[in-house]
Amino acid sequence: MKLIDLADLQQAQQRLRGMARHTSLLPYPLPELAPEQVYLKPESLQPIGSFKIRGAGNRILALSEAERARGVLAYSSGNHAQGVAYAARQLGINATIIMPTNAPQVKIAATRALGAEVILYDPALEKREAVAARLLASAPEPPVLVPPFDDAYVIAGQGTVGLELFADLPEVELVLAPVGGGGLLGGVAAALKLLKPSVKIIGVEPELAADAQASLRAGRVVEWAAADTNRTLADGVRTLALSELTFQHLRQYADDIVTVSEADLRAAARRLLLEARLVIEPTAALPLAALLRHRATLPPSRHTVLILSGGNADPATLIELLRD
Amino acid sequence: MKLIDLADLQQAQQRLRGMARHTSLLPYPLPELAPEQVYLKPESLQPIGSFKIRGAGNRILALSEAERARGVLAYSSGNHAQGVAYAARQLGINATIIMPTNAPQVKIAATRALGAEVILYDPALEKREAVAARLLASAPEPPVLVPPFDDAYVIAGQGTVGLELFADLPEVELVLAPVGGGGLLGGVAAALKLLKPSVKIIGVEPELAADAQASLRAGRVVEWAAADTNRTLADGVRTLALSELTFQHLRQYADDIVTVSEADLRAAARRLLLEARLVIEPTAALPLAALLRHRATLPPSRHTVLILSGGNADPATLIELLRD
Repeated sequence: MKLIDLADLQQAQQRLRGMARHTSLLPYPLPELAPEQVYLKPESLQPIGSFKIRGAGNRILALSEAERARGVLAYSSGNHAQGVAYAARQLGINATIIMPTNAPQVKIAATRALGAEVILYDPALEKREAVAARLLASAPEPPVLVPPFDDAYVIAGQGTVGLELFADLPEVELVLAPVGGGGLLGGVAAALKLLKPSVKIIGVEPELAADAQASLRAGRVVEWAAADTNRTLADGVRTLALSELTFQHLRQYADDIVTVSEADLRAAARRLLLEARLVIEPTAALPLAALLRHRATLPPSRHTVLILSGGNADPATLIELLRD
Repeated sequence: MKLIDLADLQQAQQRLRGMARHTSLLPYPLPELAPEQVYLKPESLQPIGSFKIRGAGNRILALSEAERARGVLAYSSGNHAQGVAYAARQLGINATIIMPTNAPQVKIAATRALGAEVILYDPALEKREAVAARLLASAPEPPVLVPPFDDAYVIAGQGTVGLELFADLPEVELVLAPVGGGGLLGGVAAALKLLKPSVKIIGVEPELAADAQASLRAGRVVEWAAADTNRTLADGVRTLALSELTFQHLRQYADDIVTVSEADLRAAARRLLLEARLVIEPTAALPLAALLRHRATLPPSRHTVLILSGGNADPATLIELLRD
C-alpha cells in the first residue's frame, strides 16, 4: 500500500494556495507545564472553520475537467461537508452532501448556505457509505465521491497542517491531534516524520470512541458501533473506524493514541473558550485535554503544538460548555 | 499641545517586541457587502486578550530604573488593568490596580492572577481618578500612575495597531475602531493618517455612551454621567469623557464617530462568535455593528479593517449573546 510522500504534501500545499489559509500558531502559556511551551494551531480560523477545507480542497482541485463536470458527492458529519461544498463552489462545481440527522444544526445550515444539496439520513438505521452507494448507482452521470479520509489526496491535504507548523516552529518536539477517520493525524504524522523524524505525534480520542486506539493495539482496523461512538460530545470523531489507508499511515508515522474522558474534554473546551478566546467545537479540545491529563506519561517536550481541528459548534453546545 | 508622531509610534513598536503580538488580519467575508473586502484585526488574541497590552506596555517599558522601583498604579474597568499587570510582571515591577465593582468578574480575576494588587471602588459613589489621587497622596514612595489613555506613550502604544495593519494591508481604505477614552482610536488614526492620508478612520460608540461623538460635534470635551454610560453592554467604552490629549488626536486625525444601538451591538457580537469563531467582548463588536448598520453613509471602501478590541467577556455575557 502506497503511503503519501513529501512530494504529495508539497503539491497539496501549492494547490491549496488561495483556498486554505496558512493559520498562524498562537502561543498558549500553561504555567502549570512550564518550561514546556505550548502553541495552538487554530484550524478553527479557516474559511469554513476547520482543517477539512485542506483535504477536500486538494481532492477537488486535482479533479480533471471531465470529472468536475459531473459534480462531487460527499458524506460527512459536518466539517468535511462544508469543505467539499466550499471548494466546489469556488470552482463552480455542483456538490451533493449526505449528512446524518444528528449532525449539529449549525453544520447542516452552513453546508446548505454554501450552495450544496444536503441529503439527510438516520445513522441509527443506515451507514453513510450505503446511502452514498445507492445515490451513485441511481445517477445517470454519477458524481465523483470525495471521501472524508480514505483517499491519498485528502490525507495529503490535511497533512499540509504539518508542513505549516514545522515551517513556523522548526523546534517542535511534540504534536497532538484529534483522530476520527485518521486523515488529519495520518497526514500530519507523515509530514512531520518525513521532515523531522524526532518529532513525536500523538493522536487523541474520546474514551467513548476509541476505535483508532483499539486498531493500533490490535494491529488491524477495529470497528466500533454507532450507538457507542455517538455518546461522545466530540461529534467530529464519531467515525466508526479508520480506513485501511489511514490505518497504515498511523501505524507507520504516529507514535501513539491516547484517550480522554468527557469531563476532561469539557473542561479543556471551556479553557480554550475563556483563556485562548477561540470558539472551538468540542473535538478541537481533545489535544488540550490529553496534554493536561497525560502530561506525565506523554513524551517530554519543550515545544508542543495542539491542533485545534475546528470551530463549528452549535450555540447550545457552547452555552453548555460555558455554563459548566 | 504636542500630538504623537511617526517616531513615537515606531519607538513604541520596537519597545513592544516580545511583549505584544503582531496579530494577523483575518479575512471576514460578508457577502452582503461584496465587493468590499472586510478583515478583522483580532486584538482579542493578545496575551491579555486585548490591545491594552500595547499602551500599558509602551508606558511601562519607557520608565526609568528609579520609576520602576516605585511600582505602578492604574485605574481601569478591566483590560487596561490586565495590560499594566502583565507588563509589570514581565519586568518584575509591583502593580496596584483600582477597578470598579461592576467590572466583569473575569477581568478582576485575571488581573489578580497576573500578580497585581486590586483595589475595588463603587463607580456610583466615586470617580476612579479621585480614588487614585487618594492612594497616591497617602503612599510614602508614590507609585507611577499609568493612565488608561491620557498619555502620549499609551496613545503611541495603541497606535501600533495601525502600523501593523497598514504593513499587512497597504491597500486599506477604511478602518473602524471602538472609542472609549480615545487612546486606541487616536493612536490608530494618527498612525494611519501619517502613513496614508487617504485612509478613512471612523470611531464607533454605543448610543448609550456617545460622549466622544458629542465632543467632536461640540468642538470640546463633553462628559457623560456614569449612570448613563453604564447602561451599555459594551463595558470597555463606559468611559465618561475623552481627555484633552485624546480629543486633540481625534479632532486632528479621525474622520468621524458613529453610534450603534444595543440591539445592533448584540447581533454583531453573536455573528463574530459564530461566523468568525472568535470569543470577543461586546465592545469588540462595535465596528461590525457600525459597518452593517451604516454602510450606506460610511466612506466607500474596497478594503476595510474592523479592530476587535478584546476578548475578555464573562461566561454569563457570552451565554446571553449566544442565546439571543
